[in-house]
Amino acid sequence: MGTSTVCYRCNRRYQDDNQVRCECGEPLWFDDDLAGFDLPSPREMNGLWRYAEALPDLRPEGIAAAAGRTPLLRSPRLDQVAGCRVYVKDEGENPTGSYKDRGSAVAVSHALQQDIDAVGTVSYGNMAMSTAAHAASLGIDCVVLVPTDTPTSRLELIAQYDPTIIQVEGEYGKLYDDVLDLNRELPISFLLSDAPARIRGYKTALFEIYEALAPDTPDAIALPASSGGFASGIWRGILEFQNAGVIDTPPRLYLVQTAASDPITRAYIADQDEVSALEAEAVGETIAHSIGNPNPPSGTRALTAVRQTGGAVCSVTDADIRQAQRQFARRGGLCVEPASATPLAGVRQLTSRGEIDEDETVVLLPTGTGFKEMGTGGVSIQTNTLSRSALSSQLASLLSS
Amino acid sequence: MGTSTVCYRCNRRYQDDNQVRCECGEPLWFDDDLAGFDLPSPREMNGLWRYAEALPDLRPEGIAAAAGRTPLLRSPRLDQVAGCRVYVKDEGENPTGSYKDRGSAVAVSHALQQDIDAVGTVSYGNMAMSTAAHAASLGIDCVVLVPTDTPTSRLELIAQYDPTIIQVEGEYGKLYDDVLDLNRELPISFLLSDAPARIRGYKTALFEIYEALAPDTPDAIALPASSGGFASGIWRGILEFQNAGVIDTPPRLYLVQTAASDPITRAYIADQDEVSALEAEAVGETIAHSIGNPNPPSGTRALTAVRQTGGAVCSVTDADIRQAQRQFARRGGLCVEPASATPLAGVRQLTSRGEIDEDETVVLLPTGTGFKEMGTGGVSIQTNTLSRSALSSQLASLLSS
Repeated sequence: MGTSTVCYRCNRRYQDDNQVRCECGEPLWFDDDLAGFDLPSPREMNGLWRYAEALPDLRPEGIAAAAGRTPLLRSPRLDQVAGCRVYVKDEGENPTGSYKDRGSAVAVSHALQQDIDAVGTVSYGNMAMSTAAHAASLGIDCVVLVPTDTPTSRLELIAQYDPTIIQVEGEYGKLYDDVLDLNRELPISFLLSDAPARIRGYKTALFEIYEALAPDTPDAIALPASSGGFASGIWRGILEFQNAGVIDTPPRLYLVQTAASDPITRAYIADQDEVSALEAEAVGETIAHSIGNPNPPSGTRALTAVRQTGGAVCSVTDADIRQAQRQFARRGGLCVEPASATPLAGVRQLTSRGEIDEDETVVLLPTGTGFKEMGTGGVSIQTNTLSRSALSSQLASLLSS
Repeated sequence: MGTSTVCYRCNRRYQDDNQVRCECGEPLWFDDDLAGFDLPSPREMNGLWRYAEALPDLRPEGIAAAAGRTPLLRSPRLDQVAGCRVYVKDEGENPTGSYKDRGSAVAVSHALQQDIDAVGTVSYGNMAMSTAAHAASLGIDCVVLVPTDTPTSRLELIAQYDPTIIQVEGEYGKLYDDVLDLNRELPISFLLSDAPARIRGYKTALFEIYEALAPDTPDAIALPASSGGFASGIWRGILEFQNAGVIDTPPRLYLVQTAASDPITRAYIADQDEVSALEAEAVGETIAHSIGNPNPPSGTRALTAVRQTGGAVCSVTDADIRQAQRQFARRGGLCVEPASATPLAGVRQLTSRGEIDEDETVVLLPTGTGFKEMGTGGVSIQTNTLSRSALSSQLASLLSS
């Protein structure tokens, strides 16, 4: 594995592996080289660390050892909904219930090798939970910066891991840049959505997809997009596997955004090369709160990934998302968060437009479990009431009806 | 793998693989034979089905393919709490967030091979969610029998998978026997906590522990106990591995119950051979609602497993459980449900009593994720509020304090 970071766009290279962004403004990633790497026969059961050639030379304990190695399952009852042949890579089966654990496993362990007092992050959702949990399990302090209006239900999920939670007054969207400064000024390592060490962790999801499907290969991979970090990781994985000769034709990457905040879709449709931040008035409310970033730091990289793989970006409404979430549960047996339902809604749109054929194999990537938001008791449920003594007869008529 | 069921106690054998209990009253399990089986080098990534020699000859799709293969992680920051060397097998990382998926994966797939209209279960918790989800993903109807006082928050989790939910009036505890009759009378297969096909799935957790630790071996395994089904599965796995020559000295099994309903602990302490149902007045309220069964159908089998492996059974209070749950999160980075926190509380008790030595290796088995009950907003959270402009200076003083 490499030790320098590089820009995917201008190819500038940096020996400082804490540097997040290139002089050209684009986010960096690690310059790993997998030349000569073959699809391994599965090795020991230590999560994503089995891809040792492509990861830093760490053997972390705690939940870092448990991140990744999520199942890929064939989900035939979703085919009819999606309009193609569906596999699901269930990223909800990570230690804190989201793909963020792949990034935290690599990034928090990596940060610990340096002379710092704490790790930190800017998030009020899955990334905050994941970073705080990985810090707790490795015994280092964690600082989480959240907006002042973060709901208590979300804070409760973060607070269980006992980080220092700071509600920041002022424009939360500007914190990304503030924090890049803080990383230089203070003995703290803020691990943002597109920290290279995170991307390094994310790419292992792509490796696992190919390993699980071998000798078959997917025609396309569909995932939610917000900051563009996960899409970057998947693309990085594709490139490393192409370089190693494991992948010949890359899978098309399809990114799906919430229509309430979809800067990458807009840039894609307008045939632009760069993703621009949305103005405040162009941003709406959405149930898919995990993917509402109007100013995605890796947006342009994600858009480039789509263009270079021949994919597309599309947006789905909250109504589409809610329907897809129900279909994931009722036809797939999977409880996914709203943001994670977007790939199913998006692929349905793309197949009906003819961008994906019905005989093609598409991997959906639901990025996080829905259990964190379920069980609040706010939903009305239909049940039947039967007496125990009459159970047999009444059940028989219920079954035959 | 075998095709007959057998009683662990009296060795009676049955060719009817739907039979749940022996004439002697004890629950049956499958008579699989792993003679000649070696610890495999990991094979393809298809969950528990990799142990094909020990499972029915099925290749199910849907979430059945994703059950099992949970991570085993070394958790050094829990050593100090537990008083020994701790590994954690995180069963929360299953498709519906609990070990029940191992049982449902095998049992629902198995039921589908028969001429039935539906599968069913008697549960208002993890087993109901798991059975309903597996049925949904395989496209068969599911009937869930719940008590009339089941909270809406729990029903919401079950209902998402769209089973027929029946609230049963009358003594819920007697349903176990009613349902054994229904299985004979109606074209429905009720998969109870100790259905042999479930136990067959549960044993794979033991196989995975040994595979992940090899060439090391655990001195003990600690898990929550309620119906005794999971303990039976773990023991069955031990026996099959002993028979195959993979295990020489079996690990001691430690079962932990909630003090509010602990019939197995009482039988253990009283040096009895059988577990008796608790009278209603001996049963209290507990936060560990997943393990409150006062009349465990596999209780005696579980007790026998403890005796034959040289382990113990102990009980922990709700206060112990709440503390252990916090320690799992703050020192382990793991969000576990109250029932799943009991192994940590129990092992702490056992080490302080001298039953487990500090240099021994103990695997804790938290059986289900805590995310299903989190995020309700009912907890008060401590946060700090800082302004964005003063973040650098204030964060510096916060870090140094």
